[in-house]
Amino acid sequence: MNRESWLPTLKTDTPEEGYELAVKLARKAVGMTQPDEDVRKKLRVDYANNADSLTMASQVVALNFQTVAAANNYWTNN
Amino acid sequence: MNRESWLPTLKTDTPEEGYELAVKLARKAVGMTQPDEDVRKKLRVDYANNADSLTMASQVVALNFQTVAAANNYWTNN
Amino acid sequence: MNRESWLPTLKTDTPEEGYELAVKLARKAVGMTQPDEDVRKKLRVDYANNADSLTMASQVVALNFQTVAAANNYWTNN
Amino acid sequence: MNRESWLPTLKTDTPEEGYELAVKLARKAVGMTQPDEDVRKKLRVDYANNADSLTMASQVVALNFQTVAAANNYWTNN
Amino acid sequence: MNRESWLPTLKTDTPEEGYELAVKLARKAVGMTQPDEDVRKKLRVDYANNADSLTMASQVVALNFQTVAAANNYWTNN
Amino acid sequence: MNRESWLPTLKTDTPEEGYELAVKLARKAVGMTQPDEDVRKKLRVDYANNADSLTMASQVVALNFQTVAAANNYWTNN
Repeated sequence: MNRESWLPTLKTDTPEEGYELAVKLARKAVGMTQPDEDVRKKLRVDYANNADSLTMASQVVALNFQTVAAANNYWTNN
Repeated sequence: MNRESWLPTLKTDTPEEGYELAVKLARKAVGMTQPDEDVRKKLRVDYANNADSLTMASQVVALNFQTVAAANNYWTNN
Repeated sequence: MNRESWLPTLKTDTPEEGYELAVKLARKAVGMTQPDEDVRKKLRVDYANNADSLTMASQVVALNFQTVAAANNYWTNN
Repeated sequence: MNRESWLPTLKTDTPEEGYELAVKLARKAVGMTQPDEDVRKKLRVDYANNADSLTMASQVVALNFQTVAAANNYWTNN
Repeated sequence: MNRESWLPTLKTDTPEEGYELAVKLARKAVGMTQPDEDVRKKLRVDYANNADSLTMASQVVALNFQTVAAANNYWTNN
Repeated sequence: MNRESWLPTLKTDTPEEGYELAVKLARKAVGMTQPDEDVRKKLRVDYANNADSLTMASQVVALNFQTVAAANNYWTNN
């Protein structure tokens, strides 16, 4: 009777779902470092209004999307 | 009757279109973090006039272009 | 009679455990540079309350997760 | 009667030309974000005199060179 | 009668030794840019007490560990 | 009667020479952005005495070393 895994697989049906998984992976590390959701919400207001913070967030998504895309063989069999 | 996906595939006909897709991928994560287009427009004025911000933006495009280029096998069959 | 290795293998049973290993890899380098746990705890308070610091931490996890995922062939045989 | 593509291929004859293409790729994203050449020229004065800005620029070239080098199979058949 | 190379091979027996090699690679570039050990020691005090500096150091180790891990085929034959 | 290329090949005999090539690649982009050697020398004094600048420089070397190492198949036939 295991809890459900938040990351059972890197496989997704489509590139778009793969991108959403990359976003999830990026946020997970943040949540593990700062588990307090209230603090995270407050911080989100700051960085969502700072151009460089948004670019940095996009960079982490890009790195994770590289992983997810490779895991799905770039969805070339779709 | 699905909405159209913003990312149906990573395949593009040419390297140039692949680069444009990389730019789109970079901007998508920004839009997901800051959905308010007016805020994004205001931020764009700032970072488009800051050299380091532009370099950081180019870095995210470079990472996404790595993914898109690999997905297209570097367009070597063109 | 060797001490136990903190990194006996890059193999994990699941993607989720692979992600946890990526976090461990990210923290290890920090611990090697700043071995004093009290200092690290103090620093953690700072960066856990700074959005950009959290994003940077997530980036390091993303890079290490790329390595762990590749080592596990993206868990495609699961 | 198409305009000529600025990126018809990732193939180059030599590693040196590949490196020049990587520089071009790095600058392209900057130009797409800040299309005003006069602004870019002004910004260039700033960042060309800042060590960290130059390092960041070199980082983007490095990422793009990874892509170009892979696309050319590292020029191993030269 | 050559001096001994500081980097005779990227092969290591274990992942843990591979990680140590990644740390060595990260430090080598620093030593090549700032050869004065006294200066480096002084700088180390600063960055070992700054959370973001530690994260950045961990990032460079992560990049080098990607290289070392790939060179060892992720130690999959261990 | 061509000038000699500064980058005739990515192949090196040893990992150590590969690392030196990675350093060269990192510096080349800096030199292309700031061609004035006197300015670069002045900037070098600054960043060689700043821990984060040194870490950033090491990061660019790490990225280029990934490329050079892959081009040499990680020197596995040595």
